[in-house]
Amino acid sequence: MGDLALWERFQKYLLVCDTVGVTVDISRMKFSDAFLKEKDADIRKAFVKMDELVKGSIANPDEKRMVGHYWLRDSSKAPSADIKKEIDSCLANMKKFAKNVHSGKIKPQKAKLFKNVLVIGIGGSALGPQFVAKALGTVNDKMKPYFFDNTDPEGMDNVIAAIGAGLKETVVICISKSGGTKETRNGMLEAKKAFEAAGLKFEPHAVAVTQDGSDLDKYAITNNFLARFPMWDWVGGRTSELSAVGLLPAVLQGLNIQGMLDGAKAMDAVTSVKEPLKNPAALLALMWYHAGDGRGKKDMVILPYKDRLELFSKYLQQLVMESLGKEKDLDGKVVNQGIAVYGNKGSTDQHAYVQQLRDGVNNFFITFIEVLKDRDGKSLLVEPGATSGDFLNGFHQGTRKALYESNRENITITIDQVTPQSVGQLIALYERAVGFYGTLVNTNAYHQPGVEAGKKAATGVLDLQHKIVAHLKKHKSEKHTVADVANHIGAKNEIETIYKILQHLTANPKDHGIKKTAKAGGSVFEATYSA
Amino acid sequence: MGDLALWERFQKYLLVCDTVGVTVDISRMKFSDAFLKEKDADIRKAFVKMDELVKGSIANPDEKRMVGHYWLRDSSKAPSADIKKEIDSCLANMKKFAKNVHSGKIKPQKAKLFKNVLVIGIGGSALGPQFVAKALGTVNDKMKPYFFDNTDPEGMDNVIAAIGAGLKETVVICISKSGGTKETRNGMLEAKKAFEAAGLKFEPHAVAVTQDGSDLDKYAITNNFLARFPMWDWVGGRTSELSAVGLLPAVLQGLNIQGMLDGAKAMDAVTSVKEPLKNPAALLALMWYHAGDGRGKKDMVILPYKDRLELFSKYLQQLVMESLGKEKDLDGKVVNQGIAVYGNKGSTDQHAYVQQLRDGVNNFFITFIEVLKDRDGKSLLVEPGATSGDFLNGFHQGTRKALYESNRENITITIDQVTPQSVGQLIALYERAVGFYGTLVNTNAYHQPGVEAGKKAATGVLDLQHKIVAHLKKHKSEKHTVADVANHIGAKNEIETIYKILQHLTANPKDHGIKKTAKAGGSVFEATYSA
Repeated sequence: MGDLALWERFQKYLLVCDTVGVTVDISRMKFSDAFLKEKDADIRKAFVKMDELVKGSIANPDEKRMVGHYWLRDSSKAPSADIKKEIDSCLANMKKFAKNVHSGKIKPQKAKLFKNVLVIGIGGSALGPQFVAKALGTVNDKMKPYFFDNTDPEGMDNVIAAIGAGLKETVVICISKSGGTKETRNGMLEAKKAFEAAGLKFEPHAVAVTQDGSDLDKYAITNNFLARFPMWDWVGGRTSELSAVGLLPAVLQGLNIQGMLDGAKAMDAVTSVKEPLKNPAALLALMWYHAGDGRGKKDMVILPYKDRLELFSKYLQQLVMESLGKEKDLDGKVVNQGIAVYGNKGSTDQHAYVQQLRDGVNNFFITFIEVLKDRDGKSLLVEPGATSGDFLNGFHQGTRKALYESNRENITITIDQVTPQSVGQLIALYERAVGFYGTLVNTNAYHQPGVEAGKKAATGVLDLQHKIVAHLKKHKSEKHTVADVANHIGAKNEIETIYKILQHLTANPKDHGIKKTAKAGGSVFEATYSA
Repeated sequence: MGDLALWERFQKYLLVCDTVGVTVDISRMKFSDAFLKEKDADIRKAFVKMDELVKGSIANPDEKRMVGHYWLRDSSKAPSADIKKEIDSCLANMKKFAKNVHSGKIKPQKAKLFKNVLVIGIGGSALGPQFVAKALGTVNDKMKPYFFDNTDPEGMDNVIAAIGAGLKETVVICISKSGGTKETRNGMLEAKKAFEAAGLKFEPHAVAVTQDGSDLDKYAITNNFLARFPMWDWVGGRTSELSAVGLLPAVLQGLNIQGMLDGAKAMDAVTSVKEPLKNPAALLALMWYHAGDGRGKKDMVILPYKDRLELFSKYLQQLVMESLGKEKDLDGKVVNQGIAVYGNKGSTDQHAYVQQLRDGVNNFFITFIEVLKDRDGKSLLVEPGATSGDFLNGFHQGTRKALYESNRENITITIDQVTPQSVGQLIALYERAVGFYGTLVNTNAYHQPGVEAGKKAATGVLDLQHKIVAHLKKHKSEKHTVADVANHIGAKNEIETIYKILQHLTANPKDHGIKKTAKAGGSVFEATYSA
């Protein structure tokens, strides 16, 4: 297709969403008009199902739950007055809490003002808050955000060290929808220990975000946490950024959460348009389907040309992959669906892997995210007539062109600048696109049954560890091979897991007192272990 | 395969590299003995080619270059006395420079001591330094690292704001092998402007790492930079972490660069073993081949269970994808090779996309990186008999098991702890594996011809911008549609690019003075532009 024909196609398909200042360009996706016709009925079915979802249908049938993240930014859409009231009062309470924290009305026990916020959460309780903190944060924020997003002991030690003496000025937000997430529970206890080591009480610094009546909720009540904010069973973790999960850290940081909500609400209106070519979320879902033949045959590479949006692809990894990566469709048929997502930022990634994207295996499509405004104020000319931002733009356009010439498809989403509003819009756009795509491929985009298997297996590993340690302690000073241990604790079949647990235990001898003795000249499998 | 048969397979294939403390487990890759036999000759050919490379062959035939990153950690392997001398003296000079900076013998003009290091680089000149800074850094480092790794104006503003008053205590390292990388040049000029705005001279804070005689080198000489360190044409950007590119930032930060070099050298010895099953890099290359059928049919997911290693997958994205993502093989045949790489860290990613990995599209294989030691000191028990690190280990084992049960293949690399030595080992292991794989699929792993197209297209975009701005300024106060502009500057075919340039120009009116006027009731394509 020649340049002028491409320009025609560009003009024909460019979707300019005036009310939100977002444009979506699908001209470099090589779909045909026949494809759009073929999918017309399906995408319209997705519109109907989305309307039902927004009205409060049991859109997550496996878990028998409503799916209510759209109500968070427009509580008038909530299916009951009670839910509306809960949303409104939670929002008002968060704003009030942040105001009181910022003014010093709510203050730490041994300092004048809270200046840091440590968010303890994982998955949906960390990825959204991290994305937003980086996208909208500045050095002048009211509070500085830190994260425990894992159960890595050294990782947590490093965060505590980075906070340093600031711990006494730190609010800790423990976020777990279920209230039983082990990583978060561990993080909370590690934080508590760090506070106590610094001569501080943990509880007057601690806030819980969780469902009413959960283990975390009970713990927060019993231990007199500074505050509690609700999660609801109709908000999924990966769509919780605009609930207290995302908004509480953001409002404490000093970000404009009302702007985020307004942006999302405005985007929801745009993605409610019933004309596929005028609905940006429908366009995305259709293009994903086109690219991967409705089977995820192509990876989704996300390349925002803006440092602030660097964590967007990590956020989307969860939103897209956890929503769409499913074994069975809604009829119970095995389909092994999903779309792999990766990417960091441009033009940086051009120097990392655009070599492969242009020349190598053609197993992906790119979504460029273009931000038109370069910076506040006037830019330096780095060459006659060119700024750093002109180069960034040039690299983006150049890469788009070079990839298309090499038969690699791409989408461009353009926003004016990174603001609370546009961040809310991007979140809402992808939330809706994922929902539509779920309908196109007939899967439940709102559950995550595959996560359980790993958790169950992990519990099995810990149970085995308890048995191993108990056995070795009972037979103190005796030396046991891994085969001995497996035999004696009645877990012959688990010998490999036992071997691996023993390697971890003996690398941390201070914790459970287990030591390894290598066999001189023997293999690693002949080493012995003792308490 | 039952648990005990798996234990047999595990014992059979577990490669324990005693001298470096690294083990590689390929038992969960479902290759057959026949596959190993079939590939035996090819991997042995890779051994031969690697030996030739290390001896100084023109291993990068397109660019007619030697490939010498292995000499960096063992200069006695260098093919000439001159090269050996250059490597040795560069290393000695870096150590001396850092010592003098740390002691205050070399000090800033308006402060007592340099406390920060701002690295300006992109691609291979940023990914390695960033990975190592995070993997080995602590709050007690001698200097704090910052990065400009893009040409995003706002991104650079944010870094300067984060450094704040510390700018007067900041060494700036400008890194560009070619000395002509635009992003790095822009970053240098933006940094210079920031220094001057703070009343500081830039040049006495500035260090260059580049090839002798490059534009950057000349600039550094002319402007009396604080210091210059060499790059050589026989070191590629993506394998430059153990040259001045990676070592200078690291030694200034206060990291043990000799430990990194020692680790890499020790790993090079292990990956020089001529027995495929006893060579960990050969094992990796063979498993990549097995997983993706030698065509990159499966993505490589990298999951280190350690926060410190979070940036390893970004580092590997470049190393693997830029090395292996090639259009043609060494015989000129179009092959569109490559392996897509993504991942962050465990157990965090379990809460993001393990849902898809277990249940969804089976288009990947995982490499787990396991770190046995949890932290310095004794851990808190978060439950009776279990630490946070026990949970991390449990989640890793559980996920490995659940994925394998679901027919998803995986590799595990185990190290004792994250140290300068083990970081050097991991880098060296993957450098070698990439080289071996290149031979297995008969491609040049050391060039990057596909990067040029995007750069050229970007230059075209900037040229067009100059013409647009010149035209609008010449006809000041006249209003031009995009079609007018395209006609008048004689670039009708480029009308779409012109349209996109105009959107960027008018979003930054202070820079070039170009304004947009929307047409009332008209489409975006009917807007007019004027200077």
